[in-house]
Amino acid sequence: MRMVDIIEKKAGCEPLSSEEIQFFIDGFVSGDIPDYQASALLMAIVLNDMNEREAADLTLHMMHSGDTVDLSDLPGVKVDKHSSGGVGDTTTLVVAPLVAACGGTVAKMSGRGLAFSGGTIDKLESIPGVNISQTIERFKQIVRKTGVCVIGQTGNLVPADKKMYALRDVTGTVQSVPLIAASIMSKKLAAGADAIVLDVKVGSGAFMKTVEDAKRLAELMVKMGKLLKREVVAVVTDMNQPLGLSVGNALEFREAVQLLAGQIPENDPLYEICLLLGTQMLLLSKLAKTDDEARGMLKHAIENGSGLEKLRSMIHELGGDASLVTLKGMDQLCTTRRQIPVPAKNSGYIVDMQAELIGRAAQVLGAGRATKEDVIDPAVGLVMHKRVGDRVEQGDAICTLYVNDESNLADAMETMTEAVRIGEKPKFVTPMVYAVIR
Amino acid sequence: MRMVDIIEKKAGCEPLSSEEIQFFIDGFVSGDIPDYQASALLMAIVLNDMNEREAADLTLHMMHSGDTVDLSDLPGVKVDKHSSGGVGDTTTLVVAPLVAACGGTVAKMSGRGLAFSGGTIDKLESIPGVNISQTIERFKQIVRKTGVCVIGQTGNLVPADKKMYALRDVTGTVQSVPLIAASIMSKKLAAGADAIVLDVKVGSGAFMKTVEDAKRLAELMVKMGKLLKREVVAVVTDMNQPLGLSVGNALEFREAVQLLAGQIPENDPLYEICLLLGTQMLLLSKLAKTDDEARGMLKHAIENGSGLEKLRSMIHELGGDASLVTLKGMDQLCTTRRQIPVPAKNSGYIVDMQAELIGRAAQVLGAGRATKEDVIDPAVGLVMHKRVGDRVEQGDAICTLYVNDESNLADAMETMTEAVRIGEKPKFVTPMVYAVIR
Repeated sequence: MRMVDIIEKKAGCEPLSSEEIQFFIDGFVSGDIPDYQASALLMAIVLNDMNEREAADLTLHMMHSGDTVDLSDLPGVKVDKHSSGGVGDTTTLVVAPLVAACGGTVAKMSGRGLAFSGGTIDKLESIPGVNISQTIERFKQIVRKTGVCVIGQTGNLVPADKKMYALRDVTGTVQSVPLIAASIMSKKLAAGADAIVLDVKVGSGAFMKTVEDAKRLAELMVKMGKLLKREVVAVVTDMNQPLGLSVGNALEFREAVQLLAGQIPENDPLYEICLLLGTQMLLLSKLAKTDDEARGMLKHAIENGSGLEKLRSMIHELGGDASLVTLKGMDQLCTTRRQIPVPAKNSGYIVDMQAELIGRAAQVLGAGRATKEDVIDPAVGLVMHKRVGDRVEQGDAICTLYVNDESNLADAMETMTEAVRIGEKPKFVTPMVYAVIR
Repeated sequence: MRMVDIIEKKAGCEPLSSEEIQFFIDGFVSGDIPDYQASALLMAIVLNDMNEREAADLTLHMMHSGDTVDLSDLPGVKVDKHSSGGVGDTTTLVVAPLVAACGGTVAKMSGRGLAFSGGTIDKLESIPGVNISQTIERFKQIVRKTGVCVIGQTGNLVPADKKMYALRDVTGTVQSVPLIAASIMSKKLAAGADAIVLDVKVGSGAFMKTVEDAKRLAELMVKMGKLLKREVVAVVTDMNQPLGLSVGNALEFREAVQLLAGQIPENDPLYEICLLLGTQMLLLSKLAKTDDEARGMLKHAIENGSGLEKLRSMIHELGGDASLVTLKGMDQLCTTRRQIPVPAKNSGYIVDMQAELIGRAAQVLGAGRATKEDVIDPAVGLVMHKRVGDRVEQGDAICTLYVNDESNLADAMETMTEAVRIGEKPKFVTPMVYAVIR
């Protein structure tokens, strides 16, 4: 088999065989296939696409490029959730313990923040003492004890994805539905999940900018799940403004605690999406038969505090100070030197938010990293006071910035003012959920 | 300017600016742009194409990536011809001296054989003593004296093309009309031509396999010529069988001498194409006003032997033994240890020839190189006795192999038998000339 023939085949719009995809992945990871051939093939895939069988084969061979986690000795259906990245999306911290409180088994590996998008691992580390690096044995022990554990990626999981993403990033080959799908699915499969709920975000704060692209990605991953013998449900949800009101690590953790403590109303977008994801997870776990049944179970676990208790137990098992996982404790962790409101420049209606810019504003305050070496300040970030569609008067606080280091304060304020557009007339508000695909 | 943005622009089907193309070529040649970015862009060009302005800009920046030859101090219009490669195509050895005999100025750099396709430089070297490596000054001196000189590429001409071709060859990015056009045109322009006649071959023995692709290439190069202020005419001609009857270096040189000595009839395909190309060259040189006038001049230069005399003078100036450039001398150079006919396996009509395979048969006998290091035997090759459409009886010689080293003889005979398909009914013969584009 020759790599140049494989490239020419894809350039000629022909689907690649499983053997050809394996030859590419194995050679790329070992270094036998040089980057200049890999990038030519990746560009041919970007422009000529892959069918679902090819994407499934790509996923499988990427998954087997490194270690895989075997969760088969844990009881029940191991259900995972994945979000394609967003701003103010703290659903994992809500849904993982809630599902465990309803009897589910959630053994999940999460990532750090990437560019403007937050990461669960960074949020977990805002609780003093938490150690997100655990051995697989300890990880499973925690799951056995509490039903839920979220840690950082461990071992050499899917090295093909790491190497391929680094190459895609510099060769204009990021925007490809099958490549994105294989990247997501290979990591979820390598982490040992039986069933996966995928939350594909769409909008100004997501990597997918159109509903059409997001649906294609969601549909492809569900089809790939069938080929790969995994239960997969995908939802397409809105990211045209931050999902929750908080953007920042302790701030988002606090919002998760508020939700689990019953402090957030049911019509809140974060609440709505958490219940949507939790419902799908309970259905895939065979713990509920209908949407209504699942919703009832989840609400009950909020009302009786068992969800919050699961979160506390998990934090304790990870070495964290669980006594801080309370409304009061979280306020303490979210204390910053200054809290500065950003005023509306004029009166009117909020017609548009650039969620990506809001993520960047929090990032420049210290909530995210510009480079891998940057250190995060867990307390800083921002809390929104308005959502798209809301009426504002000139001078009203759109949001409050939580600031310790003021060196980038002007930048953050300017970014927020740019991110939130105020118009004269109220605007049609986009729905929160575009599709549920199974 | 960032290379990744340029790649994404082309991947998004947007035309690149001249500055972007220059940034790519400069960075690629200097090594600042790594091969993995270059190959991603090349694949995006293969799949999303380039318009004529982009192709002209690419040509210009490739041309300026190395030395250029200044022929402006030579008198008259410096006219060049280029063939896109073929089998048994010895037109340069006929047309260059013929045009000079008619008063034209032909200062031409030629290449060596590539894969199954022959090269003028290898053919010139079949005459003992010929040195194809000349300084530019000596090259011009010969042109001033005889009106014609054909040498090998000298100096550091178009390094961008050498580097890009090596990358395209291993990344499945060879088949792109604008990339092929820029490769050809940049070399012709760097060599200093005022006017260029391009012979785009199409068929089983050419790099272009369909008339449609060949016409696109021809039309693009003519349009690029207008943008680049060069006179360009392109013809699209048949390469579904060897153009001349001879395939091999001294053998093709002999056929050129036979033609210039008036030994080949006017209805012969090689004769027809030589007169077509010569006519276009005389028209571009402003030495003739009409096709008929040009044809008359060329025929006259055959009949009175002045074309053959020009070839002899050029060989003499290049250090070769001009006394061998006669019918008798050429027979001497074409003497091999064995001459072996390849018999027809059955009776019928020749319906098809795989000209590429015929080129390969000559190559394995020693007429061409499989690797750069291989040494050519100038005398070996083959002479066809039949053309497509001819009636053959079982056992008739289809061709004669000229053999010194018999180690690959069986391979060559088998290849020839495979290359020439005999059917029961006579077949429609494809035309020699598909288009003349100006």
